[in-house]
Amino acid sequence: MIRVIVWNEYLHEKENQVVASLYPNGIHGAIGAGIAKEDVQVRYATLDMPEHGLSDEVLSETDVLIWWGHRGHNQVSDEIVERVQKRVLQGMGLIVLHSGHFSKIFKKLMGTTCDLKWRAVGEKERLWVVDPSHPIAEGVGQFIELEHEEMYGEHFDIPAPDELVFVSWFEGGEVFRSGCTFRRGQGKIFYFRPGHETYPTYHNQDVLRVISNAVHWAAPKLGAKPVYGHVKEPLEPIKSV
Amino acid sequence: MIRVIVWNEYLHEKENQVVASLYPNGIHGAIGAGIAKEDVQVRYATLDMPEHGLSDEVLSETDVLIWWGHRGHNQVSDEIVERVQKRVLQGMGLIVLHSGHFSKIFKKLMGTTCDLKWRAVGEKERLWVVDPSHPIAEGVGQFIELEHEEMYGEHFDIPAPDELVFVSWFEGGEVFRSGCTFRRGQGKIFYFRPGHETYPTYHNQDVLRVISNAVHWAAPKLGAKPVYGHVKEPLEPIKSV
Amino acid sequence: MIRVIVWNEYLHEKENQVVASLYPNGIHGAIGAGIAKEDVQVRYATLDMPEHGLSDEVLSETDVLIWWGHRGHNQVSDEIVERVQKRVLQGMGLIVLHSGHFSKIFKKLMGTTCDLKWRAVGEKERLWVVDPSHPIAEGVGQFIELEHEEMYGEHFDIPAPDELVFVSWFEGGEVFRSGCTFRRGQGKIFYFRPGHETYPTYHNQDVLRVISNAVHWAAPKLGAKPVYGHVKEPLEPIKSV
Amino acid sequence: MIRVIVWNEYLHEKENQVVASLYPNGIHGAIGAGIAKEDVQVRYATLDMPEHGLSDEVLSETDVLIWWGHRGHNQVSDEIVERVQKRVLQGMGLIVLHSGHFSKIFKKLMGTTCDLKWRAVGEKERLWVVDPSHPIAEGVGQFIELEHEEMYGEHFDIPAPDELVFVSWFEGGEVFRSGCTFRRGQGKIFYFRPGHETYPTYHNQDVLRVISNAVHWAAPKLGAKPVYGHVKEPLEPIKSV
Repeated sequence: MIRVIVWNEYLHEKENQVVASLYPNGIHGAIGAGIAKEDVQVRYATLDMPEHGLSDEVLSETDVLIWWGHRGHNQVSDEIVERVQKRVLQGMGLIVLHSGHFSKIFKKLMGTTCDLKWRAVGEKERLWVVDPSHPIAEGVGQFIELEHEEMYGEHFDIPAPDELVFVSWFEGGEVFRSGCTFRRGQGKIFYFRPGHETYPTYHNQDVLRVISNAVHWAAPKLGAKPVYGHVKEPLEPIKSV
Repeated sequence: MIRVIVWNEYLHEKENQVVASLYPNGIHGAIGAGIAKEDVQVRYATLDMPEHGLSDEVLSETDVLIWWGHRGHNQVSDEIVERVQKRVLQGMGLIVLHSGHFSKIFKKLMGTTCDLKWRAVGEKERLWVVDPSHPIAEGVGQFIELEHEEMYGEHFDIPAPDELVFVSWFEGGEVFRSGCTFRRGQGKIFYFRPGHETYPTYHNQDVLRVISNAVHWAAPKLGAKPVYGHVKEPLEPIKSV
Repeated sequence: MIRVIVWNEYLHEKENQVVASLYPNGIHGAIGAGIAKEDVQVRYATLDMPEHGLSDEVLSETDVLIWWGHRGHNQVSDEIVERVQKRVLQGMGLIVLHSGHFSKIFKKLMGTTCDLKWRAVGEKERLWVVDPSHPIAEGVGQFIELEHEEMYGEHFDIPAPDELVFVSWFEGGEVFRSGCTFRRGQGKIFYFRPGHETYPTYHNQDVLRVISNAVHWAAPKLGAKPVYGHVKEPLEPIKSV
Repeated sequence: MIRVIVWNEYLHEKENQVVASLYPNGIHGAIGAGIAKEDVQVRYATLDMPEHGLSDEVLSETDVLIWWGHRGHNQVSDEIVERVQKRVLQGMGLIVLHSGHFSKIFKKLMGTTCDLKWRAVGEKERLWVVDPSHPIAEGVGQFIELEHEEMYGEHFDIPAPDELVFVSWFEGGEVFRSGCTFRRGQGKIFYFRPGHETYPTYHNQDVLRVISNAVHWAAPKLGAKPVYGHVKEPLEPIKSV
């Protein structure tokens, strides 16, 4: 059983009729409904909950955290961002969606500005698979086509991703590295570009399939347990002193 | 002309006789003397200077910053760390030495704990070149041997380096990824392991050669200028809206 | 069910008493016995079999191929090497062991000489985990210790691995990148260093565990199906002609 | 002084009027004229020359080899391909252009099929810089625009590149990783996509600038000299035998 939390700032849905009608249960609700399976347990957390719904207890019981934020990035408490970072470094998976590129948690884990170009006129996006062997692309065809999306364009100021899975083509002439994996500490991170709030992107079956694949990919696997700190006894005798 | 600042917390040298006698002009003085050349201008900055010697003006005139810190990591102001990070992302090179692995600036740029194992009994270290094609290894033989050093052992909690140049063998039985490059924003970063304050490491000609090579490697080259932000006019007509 | 073939040139065991007594069922037999599980079906193939035991039919029913070779590299037919390469590029996993670094198939997939340093005096080896989050390291402690092994030393002339999982420490003073992953086409490749024929390495439980982990890691997962060749109809109208 | 050889199969120019009028001195002539500088010496070699113009002597005096081939891939002798591979692994730079993706030398160095999608209707291509810090992108704006080019589309079956510098947008709806670096042995390799023979691509100043930048980037630098083979004497005493 993979224990997932879908975190959403949940602001647009309460104020914008277009968003509210697209996502009557919130963006988190649409994502959660799309990825829940027998072996995936979905819970939700939002900005307005105590501790943004991300208490130590909740995080300690979470395998993968999905993050959607946009307008409310600065309302997220620094303390909770550090808490989430710590859990990722200990092994919790993290899936950062769309405008989450500017979230505190993503910038903190990347160490860069995470800046990019953008244009929101509802143009066509086509996400091409550039690593067809990757489990995150399982079941996707050559590309995912979204009739209307916000454009994100290069340069995207991130560290070189460990793996590049998708590259987007935009009708208006730009490209973007839209599916990127990173390992930080024991945790796996996937950034996935699409999902502007005014389009029905999180009802698209291919988009949901990718997020679902990423949940399985990012869930902590048993690895070796790292050890840090002072080593009193050398493994071999020291002669040179 | 490459404009370098050697930054040193400059604490051990003032309190520990062994360190003082090894480095009468400070660790920064030894490094600076070792890398100064016709085309490399060296200046110094230390923790006790106003703004730690790293004012906006100074940083704007710096191509490569070399960082040695250990006991004083927490005395470095957060504001100045953010300033240095910003300059690195804009293109300033950064060379982080030895215990600088735990400096605020390195952790901020890596996004991980940067933790490791250690033991300070003065054992032998041998740094093997694992990427002989790399300019940072220019002029080095198969390895660099240091008779007495502190041991740093894996696991080293960093993102997978973009390039791995050196791996250390330790007499006591451990190994360590001791020469690692990272690109963050427009800036190049090199982490180089050796340099415990109680050993004459920064008088070793091979160690100085590597730092000098790294200065040349990390100095900003002209690349393409990245552009970010809102794109009003699409490059191609948008039909799909 | 993962269908594995353990391929062994099977030469030393027939001529060298030491090897024969260590591996009465062949090196392949020891490896196969060590990794067979409910969900792993093991078959064997050797140099002296028709088509070296690697007919088109056999390969088409193989998920992961494990390769041990040493003296007989040049006796392996070029045609069969091309056949194996083709299957790897289509998705079959490949685990190359020890002196397999100089096998035709590994060199063909790497594009480099795969040369290294070596010394066979039976010294101690310690394989340190440098990526504890990797599933290939599952269940391993901080390191694997082998009392007697052949030494392989850097420089190891391979492309930079996609992931570095193990680094070896040798008693005689060298280090080696001893657990390396590569993706080529749809296939996953793992190179694992230990396993000189005159030592009981393939009876070591940790070594067998790593090979078993690698089998699961390298088994083909469903990804996206890549498409190549001429595209008659553009997805978008071409105006600029 | 960087000693460059521009290699061209030189077939289309002799048979196709369009190509002949675009490149009266051959594709190699246009490239050579575009990159020759005070510190870059350009020579030419073509398929019809003895040993394709790539004798051992010529190669031993070459720092960077630029390769353009298309129809004649199979006419290139295997022996000479091995010779070129050997020189690359020893440190010679290699720049592979456009349809050279299917050349014997590129496939041999990559170990994969190097297959891709294509369509030759003269559509618009825009090559976006995705690594603006890279010296190969020096002096280029946000992108290079080519009014008419052949389309190459993903999936491009190459190993994950060490660095990704350009990604192409095509008018017909595809994307492509069009500027990729690889290190193999001591040599540096750059694959650069544009350059279909029926378009004036090698008269475009930005394209020539990128090739010129790549020549400087790929020219052998002094690194450490790798050592291989049997190590008679261990660096440390062996106790465990």
